[in-house]
Amino acid sequence: MAETYNYEFFNVSFPAEHVAHVEINRPEKLNAFKEVMWHNLSALFKKLSTDPNIRAIVYSGAGRAFTAGLDVQAASSGGTFAPPTVDSARKANGLRRHILEFQECITALEKCEKPVICVMHGISFGLALDMSLSCDIRISTADTKFSVKEVDIGLAADIGTLSRLPHAVGNMSWIKDVALSARVFGSEEALRVGLVSRVAADKEAGLKEALELATLIASKSPVAVLGTKEILNYSRDKTVAEGLNYTAVWNAAMLQTDDMKEAMLSGIQKKKVKFAKL
Amino acid sequence: MAETYNYEFFNVSFPAEHVAHVEINRPEKLNAFKEVMWHNLSALFKKLSTDPNIRAIVYSGAGRAFTAGLDVQAASSGGTFAPPTVDSARKANGLRRHILEFQECITALEKCEKPVICVMHGISFGLALDMSLSCDIRISTADTKFSVKEVDIGLAADIGTLSRLPHAVGNMSWIKDVALSARVFGSEEALRVGLVSRVAADKEAGLKEALELATLIASKSPVAVLGTKEILNYSRDKTVAEGLNYTAVWNAAMLQTDDMKEAMLSGIQKKKVKFAKL
Amino acid sequence: MAETYNYEFFNVSFPAEHVAHVEINRPEKLNAFKEVMWHNLSALFKKLSTDPNIRAIVYSGAGRAFTAGLDVQAASSGGTFAPPTVDSARKANGLRRHILEFQECITALEKCEKPVICVMHGISFGLALDMSLSCDIRISTADTKFSVKEVDIGLAADIGTLSRLPHAVGNMSWIKDVALSARVFGSEEALRVGLVSRVAADKEAGLKEALELATLIASKSPVAVLGTKEILNYSRDKTVAEGLNYTAVWNAAMLQTDDMKEAMLSGIQKKKVKFAKL
Amino acid sequence: MAETYNYEFFNVSFPAEHVAHVEINRPEKLNAFKEVMWHNLSALFKKLSTDPNIRAIVYSGAGRAFTAGLDVQAASSGGTFAPPTVDSARKANGLRRHILEFQECITALEKCEKPVICVMHGISFGLALDMSLSCDIRISTADTKFSVKEVDIGLAADIGTLSRLPHAVGNMSWIKDVALSARVFGSEEALRVGLVSRVAADKEAGLKEALELATLIASKSPVAVLGTKEILNYSRDKTVAEGLNYTAVWNAAMLQTDDMKEAMLSGIQKKKVKFAKL
Amino acid sequence: MAETYNYEFFNVSFPAEHVAHVEINRPEKLNAFKEVMWHNLSALFKKLSTDPNIRAIVYSGAGRAFTAGLDVQAASSGGTFAPPTVDSARKANGLRRHILEFQECITALEKCEKPVICVMHGISFGLALDMSLSCDIRISTADTKFSVKEVDIGLAADIGTLSRLPHAVGNMSWIKDVALSARVFGSEEALRVGLVSRVAADKEAGLKEALELATLIASKSPVAVLGTKEILNYSRDKTVAEGLNYTAVWNAAMLQTDDMKEAMLSGIQKKKVKFAKL
Amino acid sequence: MAETYNYEFFNVSFPAEHVAHVEINRPEKLNAFKEVMWHNLSALFKKLSTDPNIRAIVYSGAGRAFTAGLDVQAASSGGTFAPPTVDSARKANGLRRHILEFQECITALEKCEKPVICVMHGISFGLALDMSLSCDIRISTADTKFSVKEVDIGLAADIGTLSRLPHAVGNMSWIKDVALSARVFGSEEALRVGLVSRVAADKEAGLKEALELATLIASKSPVAVLGTKEILNYSRDKTVAEGLNYTAVWNAAMLQTDDMKEAMLSGIQKKKVKFAKL
Repeated sequence: MAETYNYEFFNVSFPAEHVAHVEINRPEKLNAFKEVMWHNLSALFKKLSTDPNIRAIVYSGAGRAFTAGLDVQAASSGGTFAPPTVDSARKANGLRRHILEFQECITALEKCEKPVICVMHGISFGLALDMSLSCDIRISTADTKFSVKEVDIGLAADIGTLSRLPHAVGNMSWIKDVALSARVFGSEEALRVGLVSRVAADKEAGLKEALELATLIASKSPVAVLGTKEILNYSRDKTVAEGLNYTAVWNAAMLQTDDMKEAMLSGIQKKKVKFAKL
Repeated sequence: MAETYNYEFFNVSFPAEHVAHVEINRPEKLNAFKEVMWHNLSALFKKLSTDPNIRAIVYSGAGRAFTAGLDVQAASSGGTFAPPTVDSARKANGLRRHILEFQECITALEKCEKPVICVMHGISFGLALDMSLSCDIRISTADTKFSVKEVDIGLAADIGTLSRLPHAVGNMSWIKDVALSARVFGSEEALRVGLVSRVAADKEAGLKEALELATLIASKSPVAVLGTKEILNYSRDKTVAEGLNYTAVWNAAMLQTDDMKEAMLSGIQKKKVKFAKL
Repeated sequence: MAETYNYEFFNVSFPAEHVAHVEINRPEKLNAFKEVMWHNLSALFKKLSTDPNIRAIVYSGAGRAFTAGLDVQAASSGGTFAPPTVDSARKANGLRRHILEFQECITALEKCEKPVICVMHGISFGLALDMSLSCDIRISTADTKFSVKEVDIGLAADIGTLSRLPHAVGNMSWIKDVALSARVFGSEEALRVGLVSRVAADKEAGLKEALELATLIASKSPVAVLGTKEILNYSRDKTVAEGLNYTAVWNAAMLQTDDMKEAMLSGIQKKKVKFAKL
Repeated sequence: MAETYNYEFFNVSFPAEHVAHVEINRPEKLNAFKEVMWHNLSALFKKLSTDPNIRAIVYSGAGRAFTAGLDVQAASSGGTFAPPTVDSARKANGLRRHILEFQECITALEKCEKPVICVMHGISFGLALDMSLSCDIRISTADTKFSVKEVDIGLAADIGTLSRLPHAVGNMSWIKDVALSARVFGSEEALRVGLVSRVAADKEAGLKEALELATLIASKSPVAVLGTKEILNYSRDKTVAEGLNYTAVWNAAMLQTDDMKEAMLSGIQKKKVKFAKL
Repeated sequence: MAETYNYEFFNVSFPAEHVAHVEINRPEKLNAFKEVMWHNLSALFKKLSTDPNIRAIVYSGAGRAFTAGLDVQAASSGGTFAPPTVDSARKANGLRRHILEFQECITALEKCEKPVICVMHGISFGLALDMSLSCDIRISTADTKFSVKEVDIGLAADIGTLSRLPHAVGNMSWIKDVALSARVFGSEEALRVGLVSRVAADKEAGLKEALELATLIASKSPVAVLGTKEILNYSRDKTVAEGLNYTAVWNAAMLQTDDMKEAMLSGIQKKKVKFAKL
Repeated sequence: MAETYNYEFFNVSFPAEHVAHVEINRPEKLNAFKEVMWHNLSALFKKLSTDPNIRAIVYSGAGRAFTAGLDVQAASSGGTFAPPTVDSARKANGLRRHILEFQECITALEKCEKPVICVMHGISFGLALDMSLSCDIRISTADTKFSVKEVDIGLAADIGTLSRLPHAVGNMSWIKDVALSARVFGSEEALRVGLVSRVAADKEAGLKEALELATLIASKSPVAVLGTKEILNYSRDKTVAEGLNYTAVWNAAMLQTDDMKEAMLSGIQKKKVKFAKL
């Protein structure tokens, strides 16, 4: 199965039943991203999203860091930010197209039908935050160094951090503190404000914890897990009344699953269920 | 007065001036809910909502637990989730109607004009969260065991938890952590992420604290308290600009109350006011 | 330059390059606000907003307190809340006009194009919260006494606290706990729930920390800082999808700044840049 | 069956299979509404909403007029607008409760799961518009006299006209023309701006046309009709993107109906289908 | 009274009780707008908005045209669109500030508490539409020549036409037809699609009709008229449920007016009322 | 150039400078759509969207009809609506995925950066409306037969009609009239309610009119045309205040185009401009 997941700069493995592990694999550059990588990331998670064998995903980085963010050197030489010498309005439209496309690649993490647990260790700058905020659950380690780095290269972060941070963390004063100053902060601060929900001792412990959580989630009804992710994402963006109505429409179909009967029975009989694929 | 609040499975008492205490009363089943109970809950809180003698409400559970949630046995036998043998679309509409009706009953807690302080002790699973998230203030105890339990019976929580949690707590990573895994967590974690605002030593201490807070709130101008609850609920769901405008329209009427003069005077004269009924 | 910032009840100084310090100056009344003060506040911050010499602002109070809030005595005598003796509907419209105007003055802090760091020390009641919630970053001190005071004078807070608090802090249970009871709370609690992002030992330490943060922010590209503030405020109020699209349109223009090249170069050459004025 | 629909001031009959006809029946007062009537209206349409025998509803008025609107005499004597002699703020809350309750009764027409076709003839003032705007389809007659009458009795229409008119008709200039002046207008104007979709020669012709349309709708798949009404109402209030997503979730369940196969087959075989009840 | 309304390029007169007539007065340039004019327009309507003597306003143009739109010559020479020679990002921010300020001036027409009836005759290009769409009611004449002109000078209309047209007219196909092609169209087409609600024979007839309508509106309760305008504007932008709730809060105060009793009485006694000032 | 636009079932030609003509080409089946066609449609319009040679597009159908809609026979045999024999919830998720993908293909028409003018002649059922409502401008002919056909095959239209119709046409009563009954209607009715903005005598005249309009639009500044389409689509879905702010941010970049100078100059010199490509 692993061979069908053959994407340059990413390792994909299957450490437990129904669980995939995706690892960014460009350690010699601290996993810095160049353009081909975000296209691969998007393709990879779109495939996992509908793969019936997969029910939960762990996402992490190979080597010493989760990721140092955008590969600035590649970006400036590669033409990413060098539209043709036309007038400012035409340049602006070219940039808008480019940003929207880049954002869409990263949003593939959020749209993935299966929960994604992100393990952040070492340097986790810029794009590290854009990506992890598109994941469902964030775990960091004692040595993680976070930074909303973009302001340091003269731009407002535009691949998702500024849009998602106020919906992921409840402390606006802190959000502006780090986003306006680009200062580096650690796991203790990240845990206190709710950017991550757990801190592990080191990378190995973090991966272990993520894998256990992924395995636990993968043991639940995939219909229930999908609905829980989808309705939470919907509710984050809507009023409570809208959330309630959407839930009713969603569950009108989803409560007809056989999983419910089996799950209830297994609760009574204290034995594990094997749910059908989704 | 208590005799007019005669609802099966609920005890209603009046422990202080203008304060009601509602207790779920089915301790032999850990206060598990069957259908008649949510209809009674709704009727009871609609009555309290407009009762001019009441200004604050404490909500808790009799016996060893706040509530174990839905009475799954009653639900599966009683036909709640067993619509007639028609096609899937017709079943879906039946379920949608049923869910919307159930949601509406629980929302009576949120729509109640008077603040509701919820004390959660012991087992507080599933419906315990749906209900407490519709209350205004949540207090737990050292022994509270919380769980967003629904994923364990094969469904996405649908009586309000998924819609209200992202608006009650600011840490989306943690929300997905507990909602997708259905793992049990305690009061320390609940306090850190903001699910509860206070943790008491035990049930007695929790009730005492809730009662004191209710008594404090009941001593304020009922006009001011009503407006504060209403505008906070409105603002939670809207943009800041919408909140500001709504506040201006609301207060255009409400600032004409006599309570303001009396409250200001009492502040200067350091004596207690008796506000008129609402 | 200071002489062009001559507003009664406010001191304006320029303690570092591109940094302004605004101090409320009515210490004999604990910086309580009367009508002329909120009009001055608005005019002052509108001027700073487009002043090309300013890139970050510190806002604090002279004397023993940040502010005791509305000058209730002035308000009740001065006619603020005493519209002419017409019918209730006409009074209501007069009050609505007045509240909208007052709100707009305070919103000038939020609309200011430059980040505003608020230092709150000592008594910080009522209007103190309305104002600080319109600022970007909140720092308090060991002795700060906070209170959402309005319910104590018989009204629902209407200059912004109720609209902004649910968007600044992620803990709705705590928000209602303090807003409905008007109880006084301290910095430790404010830090835990995320109302402030830092607590300093005392006023001097708080000001020092705020000034350092302001100086750090003022050393960044003003184009990047403006965009970061603007997009964060926008995203707080919108869905993630709306935030992403807005970011793309915003940056279509803003990525054409020379600041990016200079910032990247300075990163490589390890030397400080002087960005052009905005 | 008619005997179970026994509500004072309303006649209910069943002129065709799966079609109900509801007639306001207080002709001696031009069908003017007093309080008991809107409560009956609400109960009646809630019952029709889930009655499996009903698939389309015609709503009209007995005698010379659809309705002259609110029975102003009853309202002023009966205490509807005469709350107890408390202060203005308390009066305001009493009125708010009363208006919300009244609105909810009228909204029962909109929430009814079955399409409601309203036939308006003769005098159709005030409440006539509030009610017909909650219906799905409006037909008038050559002699209909419409008026948004409320401004003439010193109030802004508050049972739904002002909220629904901008969502039912696309011409804001015309809406304000009639709402601000309360001038009487006729069917030709109503047809031109889209307030009604058809004009019949007289009441008999209008009822005949409505009945034929109801019969046509009642011959379609009730699953498809329910979905069409629900999604159109949802889409009216949301963005296109939100509408598309809601449609996908809704139809995930509803496309599983047997009605689709039967409907397709009947199209090919040119014969009429009998759809199962909903 | 007229002398207090002394604004260059505008004539203000008072042709009937409680009615103001504002006339754009730069006929030698077909009432083309330069910067001072939109600032005067804003100041003028802010004053009318709270003037207790005014209850309805007619807005028209002196000479042969309503307005030819922006004075392009003045704009290009005067520096409006010529920001200093800084980088594109800084230019962009300068333009953004300028556009927001210009938009705010035109929005003063919409925010005016009193209804504004706009009479458009002859050339009505570009800004003519931006302004008239901020008015409440639009009347044109047989010779009106409309054009959404902006696309012809290389820009997307940005002072309100593109934002307001889809909320004022229900025909999106037609809106794009005229907005993308900048073609000139006449009153017949404008009436058919609902851009205007009435067409008069010529300017004199149009003004006469507008004045009569204004006089009719000015004879109604000013409390009722204000509420009707405010709730319609709110409802245009919100869902029906939001509109209903806002209406309930608004009217909680406004139904306490004496105007209701007087209006009802006058209806019974068939005599004219004199409502108190607002 | 035409050879790069080689998509089965579609003819693409270039009848005028900067103008493309896309023709559905399956006339022997009345242009009924099977799955490959909507994927081709999407690919084709994505390519046109960023093709710098194209500034306006005409979309029509070959043969006797625009399109008869979904190829029901292909759909029922081809498995489109026949997911594997799993439980209802799993089927529901399969259908949801399928519907979202289908919707996205049709939405490519709306997202296309260039205006699309749709010419509808003859049979225009079901999908004909879904597609044309995603176009910018709709022209029909004397013989067009429209029908929101879906209710006749037992489903609620789910590829966009129900979501877009309430935003394209201002008459909700008419919308429900045709959507609930699936009745056939003609061009006169479509013009009256605003579904189309023009009616031509026959297909040839319709194409001629569309081509002239496309040529006119293609002669304007492409920067101005893009902005006008984008801001109109945005404003249709948002409040006026949101539309105004978005316009200001958009034009901050777009007003820096050289097209403005050239367009103004050409207006003065009365000669045609050649705008640079976009």
